[in-house]
Amino acid sequence: MYVLALSQVPASIIDGLRKQGFNVVQVVWKRFPDGEFYLRIPKDEISASEIFIVTTMYPEQSERFVELYLALDALRGIGVKAKSIAILYLAYARQDKRFLPGEPISIAALLRPLTLYAVNELVVVDIHAYETIASEVKELNIRNILPHSYLAKSVGIKVDFVLAPDKGALHRAKSVAEEYNVGYDYLEKFRDRISGEIRISEKELDVRGKHVVVVDDIVSTGGTLAKAIEALYKAGASKVYAIVTHALLVGNAIKKLEDVGIDMLITANTIIHSEVPSWLRVVDISPLVAEALRRS
Amino acid sequence: MYVLALSQVPASIIDGLRKQGFNVVQVVWKRFPDGEFYLRIPKDEISASEIFIVTTMYPEQSERFVELYLALDALRGIGVKAKSIAILYLAYARQDKRFLPGEPISIAALLRPLTLYAVNELVVVDIHAYETIASEVKELNIRNILPHSYLAKSVGIKVDFVLAPDKGALHRAKSVAEEYNVGYDYLEKFRDRISGEIRISEKELDVRGKHVVVVDDIVSTGGTLAKAIEALYKAGASKVYAIVTHALLVGNAIKKLEDVGIDMLITANTIIHSEVPSWLRVVDISPLVAEALRRS
Repeated sequence: MYVLALSQVPASIIDGLRKQGFNVVQVVWKRFPDGEFYLRIPKDEISASEIFIVTTMYPEQSERFVELYLALDALRGIGVKAKSIAILYLAYARQDKRFLPGEPISIAALLRPLTLYAVNELVVVDIHAYETIASEVKELNIRNILPHSYLAKSVGIKVDFVLAPDKGALHRAKSVAEEYNVGYDYLEKFRDRISGEIRISEKELDVRGKHVVVVDDIVSTGGTLAKAIEALYKAGASKVYAIVTHALLVGNAIKKLEDVGIDMLITANTIIHSEVPSWLRVVDISPLVAEALRRS
Repeated sequence: MYVLALSQVPASIIDGLRKQGFNVVQVVWKRFPDGEFYLRIPKDEISASEIFIVTTMYPEQSERFVELYLALDALRGIGVKAKSIAILYLAYARQDKRFLPGEPISIAALLRPLTLYAVNELVVVDIHAYETIASEVKELNIRNILPHSYLAKSVGIKVDFVLAPDKGALHRAKSVAEEYNVGYDYLEKFRDRISGEIRISEKELDVRGKHVVVVDDIVSTGGTLAKAIEALYKAGASKVYAIVTHALLVGNAIKKLEDVGIDMLITANTIIHSEVPSWLRVVDISPLVAEALRRS
């Protein structure tokens, strides 16, 4: 099967998919001096009427959506159908509700045009919230890869307890806890919708002397994760690991996590990591992506 | 009538539309630390079931398309229909053909989703090429504002001859030449599709001692315009003005144009100009936009 890899797909994913037997073709791309994005599909490298697309929506999230739609139009031009699209990191997925009146459901707005290209299979890695897209863009059949247990096992850590930094991540904690047959809990997180400030409630956590794993989908500026790690050390945890699918680590996230004494952050290669501190372990999840594509 | 102004619309356009009697509402917007764009429509400021949208696609062209679709989804959320969209500067419009196999028709890919929101009236200012969009996105009725004569008259320059720097701009030169009842011509431009390098052919130009106006739609890095100005001075023109609708002036465009001795560049306020050298005259075209909106 052919896979069209868009511009920001990590080389490790491309290598991994090739090892899994996929014929990976990479788009030719550039940015014009004024900032417009350009791509071209090397038509001669494709001899099939259907293709999988693999992309990731970071960095330059808005440009990545533009890139995806340019790729779909280019495929239309050469008469090749996009059978399924794997989006390793799906950006804009946190704006999945109208939290305030007058807001968009951003992720619905940005995925809705897929229906214009008869794309109805989407593979995503640890989508922030599944339900919105399913209800807002009904034509899409979404296959969600939850990689936390795979990430934990790839690195081989000891797990005594699993913590979700907020209720939204509870299903992630549960999946890891069940795999290791240990307890799990979550913290109450409050986010001020206007200022963006995060506060977590005081909570009794039975973690004294334990190896605790914090699981989440995205670490962006690191604020939520740092607060969770702080709370765990305060409650007597002996080691705190984090397993976060998408480690964007923007701004001073790395310093913030080092300041609270993070032991290890395990993440997936869903984006290109330009800086990899010693405590960041990037695990190749191409076997999971390959499996999901084969089933789609 | 209500107008929703998106984030990058120049203040002079907003003021101008208000003077023309429009009720202009501005979106609330920000960029998250990881780079995602956010917007919210101040619902309470709108008491109508239909609204015009005004936007411009520069800077951050890709983000601007994302912004437009977020705005359309947000309007849907508050039950307000976008009656017509005025795009002051329509980015991605130069990739309006599959110049090489495997390329997208970028502008079609990016406008096609408008059909999902039942938008079928578009007002644009000096679209790069009209035909593609009309044939690729048939649902769209496009009203194109050609502002060159308006710009020339606003500044009140003397015009003896009009030159298009390439054949694609000939209709622009013709419209100005007819207004002033003078001659016009064009240069043969060759662009290397791979390297992007521009070459213009030697051509006899009867411009000795004349005030010549070069007209075009976009000046980006300034290469084409600088070459045209050089050719005109070489052919004996006494003064060379340029009237270019969208003056992006990226990279070292300003220096490039100064080096060839540009006398004056007249442009429209279709984008925000962060740097305005003494020879750049930015003309407010909100009266033209207002008129086009009223007719749409």
